[in-house]
Amino acid sequence: MTVDITSAAIAAKAASKRLAIFDQRTKNDVLERMATALEVSSAELMAENRQDVENAKTQVTAGALSSAALARLTLTPEKILQMSASVRAVRALEDPVGRILLQSELDEGLELKKISCPFGVIAAIVEARPDAVVQLSALALKSGNALMIKAGAEIGRTASAIVALLSQAAESGEAPASAFTHVEGREAARELLALHEYVDLMIPRGSAELVRFVSTNTRIPVLGHADGVCHIYVDAAANREMAISLILDSKTQAPSTCNAVETVLVDAAIAGEFLPLLVDALHAHKVKTRGCEMTRSVCRQQMEAVAEDEWRLEYGDLTLAIRVVNGLHGALDHIEGFGSHHTDCIVTDDRAAAERFLREVDSAGVFHNVSTRFSDGYRYGFGAEVGISTGKLHARGPVGLEGLVTYKYVLSGKGHCVSQYSGPGARRFQHEMNFS
Amino acid sequence: MTVDITSAAIAAKAASKRLAIFDQRTKNDVLERMATALEVSSAELMAENRQDVENAKTQVTAGALSSAALARLTLTPEKILQMSASVRAVRALEDPVGRILLQSELDEGLELKKISCPFGVIAAIVEARPDAVVQLSALALKSGNALMIKAGAEIGRTASAIVALLSQAAESGEAPASAFTHVEGREAARELLALHEYVDLMIPRGSAELVRFVSTNTRIPVLGHADGVCHIYVDAAANREMAISLILDSKTQAPSTCNAVETVLVDAAIAGEFLPLLVDALHAHKVKTRGCEMTRSVCRQQMEAVAEDEWRLEYGDLTLAIRVVNGLHGALDHIEGFGSHHTDCIVTDDRAAAERFLREVDSAGVFHNVSTRFSDGYRYGFGAEVGISTGKLHARGPVGLEGLVTYKYVLSGKGHCVSQYSGPGARRFQHEMNFS
Repeated sequence: MTVDITSAAIAAKAASKRLAIFDQRTKNDVLERMATALEVSSAELMAENRQDVENAKTQVTAGALSSAALARLTLTPEKILQMSASVRAVRALEDPVGRILLQSELDEGLELKKISCPFGVIAAIVEARPDAVVQLSALALKSGNALMIKAGAEIGRTASAIVALLSQAAESGEAPASAFTHVEGREAARELLALHEYVDLMIPRGSAELVRFVSTNTRIPVLGHADGVCHIYVDAAANREMAISLILDSKTQAPSTCNAVETVLVDAAIAGEFLPLLVDALHAHKVKTRGCEMTRSVCRQQMEAVAEDEWRLEYGDLTLAIRVVNGLHGALDHIEGFGSHHTDCIVTDDRAAAERFLREVDSAGVFHNVSTRFSDGYRYGFGAEVGISTGKLHARGPVGLEGLVTYKYVLSGKGHCVSQYSGPGARRFQHEMNFS
Repeated sequence: MTVDITSAAIAAKAASKRLAIFDQRTKNDVLERMATALEVSSAELMAENRQDVENAKTQVTAGALSSAALARLTLTPEKILQMSASVRAVRALEDPVGRILLQSELDEGLELKKISCPFGVIAAIVEARPDAVVQLSALALKSGNALMIKAGAEIGRTASAIVALLSQAAESGEAPASAFTHVEGREAARELLALHEYVDLMIPRGSAELVRFVSTNTRIPVLGHADGVCHIYVDAAANREMAISLILDSKTQAPSTCNAVETVLVDAAIAGEFLPLLVDALHAHKVKTRGCEMTRSVCRQQMEAVAEDEWRLEYGDLTLAIRVVNGLHGALDHIEGFGSHHTDCIVTDDRAAAERFLREVDSAGVFHNVSTRFSDGYRYGFGAEVGISTGKLHARGPVGLEGLVTYKYVLSGKGHCVSQYSGPGARRFQHEMNFS
């Protein structure tokens, strides 16, 4: 079905008005219906998915798609059960809407409250992963927002079937069907970027190019991150074994993720002894190393050189860049110059060095003696993750459900006028009296 | 002095690194030096200001500048004392940096902290008001940010003198002189918009055109608001006297401010009796009224009609638009369609109607039985106001010192690897155990 995207956004806006005033019980009821619908319609979803899988297989044969991507987009009955479990996990989270963040009696009968409330309409552009479509739908519903979602083209049929299913489930409860809208095709996604009048928040997930394209082509506020160029700095006072174990974990545990390490910086004071150990360990784990001049000369192994502008590269695979730096100061300079403000770590037993690193590095995650892979909403204990933000406004680092709400100031009075508070005989605010 | 704006931004970034790690005592010492410098150099500032005033006077004569604007840009010894007092008021505020916003032991020895920290470099474009230059400088310093500031051209010499003075004061303490940079001229301001690599936050203050221009021409996050189209809805269950008094206060107390009311919506059920009373009261206070068809026919007075797209107008003077609407629902529709999400108020004694209005109106300030003019950081008790945001990311409504800081996640461990938490025999997070 071709949907006029502007009409769809207007319908989503209208739906968001209803969702915004739902109480916890109503939203949880809808979420339960969504979870059940996924289970009940498992066979239908599998059937739709099979067609996406067939198309994807020809792309894998043609070399246009990786087999890992094929695996991610392929549904199984177990995966569908995991998806419905993820909806129930969101159902179990506390309602982020209606929280009183601040309360103050400005004067007699003049009551100020700062209350959390939904954004309105959230538009998301996600990878070809059915589970991402389901999870964002659940998070949007729980936070009282309408969702317009565009998934990777490879799961076009699957995503369409999931969104239709969730819309019906919503409607069977008290929510409007247009709580969820499936955005089909690149052209529609592009048009979406212009709809700042209706869309309140844009969440792009996927390649750095996609995120950058979205950020530079919309006036809608964007929550996300383009690059994950994470660093580990091995200080002279580092425990060598710990450093190697952390680097291996940060690089090999899941090399394609944004919180995997891309560049290791080694204090010149220990480069001679440490680098050969590190490089041997990396090679034993099939990690390809690239290095600065000093690294290459110390290791005397065949190793590609890294050109100056290549220090910004996010490899996303089993490749690691290594640079010798002039102590902590050199590490801070490198990270400031080439980092992406995602997650950076220092390995050291020197407390003062660690503290300086943690204070001065301007990244969403600053770590000491731990793997960069911990930079993640689930591991932080947020229960769910909307995405990771490297911007500094609103949400930074892993973003949970609270990233999908904003707040408003509610002021109630008994006819209070501002003119009463100025000129001779002016009334005084109570907060003003509190100062004295 | 002509400054290369990119070099200036690089210097500001370097300064911000030093400011970010200052403790409260160091920053307060610098703020005291800034306050004293203003007092000590009062005569020099007055001399520089006199030249701006002379130029401005010729503009007033030519009709290019209002006499109110001239008054605002003219310094007096008393105003300089007020400016130094405003610096000391910021000095008295609590340090917004280094606050622990969240703390969690993820596992034994694995400690997560969410800590507030400065943005880095803030660029501000402000009106031709010397006090605005001083106040933003104090707020930036207190929040550990470097400031690049462009003030209205009419106070070019004054702003330059103030920034030079504050830079010297900073340097006489422990802060770098480039904590403050004066940006001179339109061209430099325009170049500033492209420097997202160095500038972390942009604060435009001034006309709606300026704010819109900045928002659409930079990738730097923008904190501000373009329009203040505020509404008061007079419900059938409103106390009539209270409604008239609130409307007069909201329109006449300071008509050029962004929180002044621009449109009054009147429930059709009481239009016949209420409108004539309202319009008489407004005319008695020299307020020019414009109205919808119904308003004009009920009042039988000569009144300009409002064209459909004129309901979006921010008059900024003693002009008020009046529209009869079909009850609460009609008011909500009008505000959604024509409002600017700044501040909107309902006048009613009907508790249910008030609650629905407060919940459903999607504005930074939603008010009940109070003047829209209360929408202000000082009146909210924030101690200082950076600006008012109608955006929903980060800061919404009046923004105090906390709007100038962001946060980072600090994770400290003892060599923790993510691989320990997956596969058979995986360690479990403590936050995970907390759920059970």
